[in-house]
Amino acid sequence: MKQKSVGRVETYKFAIDEDLKLSSGKTLSNVELAYETYGELNSEKTNAILVCHALTGDAHAAGWHAGDVKPGWWEMVIGPGKALDTDKYFVICSNVLGGCKGSTGPASINPETGREYALDFPIITIEDMVHAQKKLIDSFGIEKLLAVVGGSMGGMQALQWTVTYPDMMKKASIIATTARSSPQQIAFNEVGRQSIISDPNWNGGEYYDKEKSPEAGLAVARMIGHITYLSDESMYIKFGRDLQDKDELSYDFTLDFQVESYLHHQGESFVKRFDANTYLYITKAVDYFDLSINGSLVDGLKDVKTKFQIISVDSDWLYPSDQSKDLLTALQTNDVEVTYSEVKSNYGHDAFLLENGQMNFLLSNFLHENIVDDLMETSVPTIDINTKIKDVAICMINSEVTHLPVVDDNNVLLGIVTAWDLSKSIAEDKNELKEIMTKGVRFCKASDSIEYIARQMKKFNISCLPVVDDDFKLEGTITTDQISHLISNY
Amino acid sequence: MKQKSVGRVETYKFAIDEDLKLSSGKTLSNVELAYETYGELNSEKTNAILVCHALTGDAHAAGWHAGDVKPGWWEMVIGPGKALDTDKYFVICSNVLGGCKGSTGPASINPETGREYALDFPIITIEDMVHAQKKLIDSFGIEKLLAVVGGSMGGMQALQWTVTYPDMMKKASIIATTARSSPQQIAFNEVGRQSIISDPNWNGGEYYDKEKSPEAGLAVARMIGHITYLSDESMYIKFGRDLQDKDELSYDFTLDFQVESYLHHQGESFVKRFDANTYLYITKAVDYFDLSINGSLVDGLKDVKTKFQIISVDSDWLYPSDQSKDLLTALQTNDVEVTYSEVKSNYGHDAFLLENGQMNFLLSNFLHENIVDDLMETSVPTIDINTKIKDVAICMINSEVTHLPVVDDNNVLLGIVTAWDLSKSIAEDKNELKEIMTKGVRFCKASDSIEYIARQMKKFNISCLPVVDDDFKLEGTITTDQISHLISNY
Repeated sequence: MKQKSVGRVETYKFAIDEDLKLSSGKTLSNVELAYETYGELNSEKTNAILVCHALTGDAHAAGWHAGDVKPGWWEMVIGPGKALDTDKYFVICSNVLGGCKGSTGPASINPETGREYALDFPIITIEDMVHAQKKLIDSFGIEKLLAVVGGSMGGMQALQWTVTYPDMMKKASIIATTARSSPQQIAFNEVGRQSIISDPNWNGGEYYDKEKSPEAGLAVARMIGHITYLSDESMYIKFGRDLQDKDELSYDFTLDFQVESYLHHQGESFVKRFDANTYLYITKAVDYFDLSINGSLVDGLKDVKTKFQIISVDSDWLYPSDQSKDLLTALQTNDVEVTYSEVKSNYGHDAFLLENGQMNFLLSNFLHENIVDDLMETSVPTIDINTKIKDVAICMINSEVTHLPVVDDNNVLLGIVTAWDLSKSIAEDKNELKEIMTKGVRFCKASDSIEYIARQMKKFNISCLPVVDDDFKLEGTITTDQISHLISNY
Repeated sequence: MKQKSVGRVETYKFAIDEDLKLSSGKTLSNVELAYETYGELNSEKTNAILVCHALTGDAHAAGWHAGDVKPGWWEMVIGPGKALDTDKYFVICSNVLGGCKGSTGPASINPETGREYALDFPIITIEDMVHAQKKLIDSFGIEKLLAVVGGSMGGMQALQWTVTYPDMMKKASIIATTARSSPQQIAFNEVGRQSIISDPNWNGGEYYDKEKSPEAGLAVARMIGHITYLSDESMYIKFGRDLQDKDELSYDFTLDFQVESYLHHQGESFVKRFDANTYLYITKAVDYFDLSINGSLVDGLKDVKTKFQIISVDSDWLYPSDQSKDLLTALQTNDVEVTYSEVKSNYGHDAFLLENGQMNFLLSNFLHENIVDDLMETSVPTIDINTKIKDVAICMINSEVTHLPVVDDNNVLLGIVTAWDLSKSIAEDKNELKEIMTKGVRFCKASDSIEYIARQMKKFNISCLPVVDDDFKLEGTITTDQISHLISNY
């Protein structure tokens, strides 16, 4: 499978031309979303996939900006030949409402005051983020997304999409997340917020025109977050108790261990690219996220219509598999089509950004519905209705097939003759092809899903189906042999 | 079982009269340790148990100080009739070196400057804490502790004792801890330290004479710690997603959820009772803790001689059971006597402070070696060597026993006669007691351990043993029936 990048990309801006009504009851005007797209939207506008980003992500999910030293955050699965195959799909990713990477958030200018919103920015929810994204999707004229995909907070958005706009997508892939934030998740977020708010440089959120911003508080918040994204085991593998740039313990308060140095680096680099107030707003949105109704997820998800994929990570202790299984059970109770997979990984929560093989395998299997067209044999020998039986047999032997479609002069399918039919001709002294061939045969279309066709062939005990177009002209054949090869690729 | 408190207690001070040489190579003078004791040291000084406290604990492990609203931190297991039974044992607990509850630490006055040490206090290790405790134990004239017991950082100290002073204790109970801090544990500690150090009021550690201390940073550090002490499940049970003093989400940055309010309360009350610099020093000591030698725990523990009990908690994700099992394996590899138990609890790491029943059961079973004296029957019928066979039979029937000790006028044991012997007398026409009784019988002492005696009785297929004093006078008997009743109590 080729693994290429979408290459050079740019971030665009989309201005929402109406006021956005928020969950809090407030409204927000002049909202802009930063977004990127990869691949081409097809003429039917049926191949669009919305990717939703996690807490500190952005619209730059794949490819390279000018001067980039590393590609977008989910380059691993987005690009030609990857699970989110940009040769087939049109992938859209936008920075969330409340973000600080180009979308309207607390660091944006409040049109009413001409100054940054800071804490005048209204509290936003995951549903508000999704409402804004919907406007962006509408702007492309897309009536139904092929899929919404997201991990962590991105998974919350994807899940919210299926509840708020149940007819807007065929599929949803919900990765390493929960349908409602747990008290432990809230607790970690609150400690992060408290760390920022305790920093005197936060100054009640009014630091945009000051010399100093609450970098120390934000760095600690990021360090806490980072610990929760890794598993205990991955930290052992990555750092153990190895010392940083020294052979012996320092016996002072400098950094002794590599893991300390790593965390400091994570904290320091984060404050350069992230706004502290956005951290407050977005973690609050995560805390508020709860799709249950009176505690019942079954009730909260009773109107979803989407085909679901749920993925969790066995070593993820921040969003443990049990929370994904709660979601799975609620969907199954509602008779929703859903598959669940647990990624085996040492990486912890971050596995959805790192487990290349498993993530590509699971996502591509879910997104790519193989159709007959992908597998059918088009250069199949056919025979004329007037062919003599002996010549039919010669053709069969020479072409090494057991099924020969019988067509008229316009290639319209009349029937099929098989090795079995030829045997019958000998047994019953039949000399005419039309006497022994099977008429009114089962057939399929090139656009039929392989899954469906495979079930039909099993049901009727058929090993070869002719593929016809709308005028019943033969386009090829599909055999159980070909389908089995597909399975063996996995 | 009666469950009483040791009642009113006081904290005492012990001054170490020599310089303490530290792991770092530095020395510390004028070291004082705050300590408490419960129960009475016996005249042989063989009943002392040292209890070691966790990160933020102190010497006040049990009982009540004047004005206390709650008792010492391990009241649950220390007291008359409890696992650390103060009717039997002499329990000692001291505040660690580097602490802020009466022992010498960074908030103490540096005799060289007349001011608080602050960051001039040397970095200390778990081994340094143990060295200081050893001086305290020596001051009582105790040559061998009955046991060293501790959970979390207290477990590290207990473990260090078994390595540093392998002949100084009969038993060690190592609870909810590890033999070496993991990178995840180091990471959480470093974030806590960073939170304190980032607080401008920390001021390089020089805040003792300032109006403000780094309360905000210390509170965040405590909040982080507190999350790690609880399990995800216990937080669900305790808080769920319940709101605090409100019916609806606030849509602002006030505290919405009970879990947030709880954490804030924990942070706020902690800063009133704890010194920020001590938090830095003690977490550093925890990070440095590593009993392995070149990565090998087997090597690091090769000289220990103690009988070990290891206890972990199934829901403890900060000190997960796997770390206790690593310790178990290393001890077993070294052929050390060790038992391992996993407490079943939702409480997470804090279970060792909360699981009353399981902790008392496990600790008392481990600490309390039942001896013959606890179970023996003292009012047993005996017979004189000159008793006629017929009278022996009558005595046996009337007293409903199958074993009768035979004694002389001074109650010195001469032998035993059994129902079996009487049968023999009939079969062999013997008429003298001295002809049929068993002489040179096996016997035991009242101070023998039940475990040992039970093994002996099994080995020699004996159902009743006479108990004699040093002059071989009969004190009573012990039977397999009595021993089996003991087992059935558990």
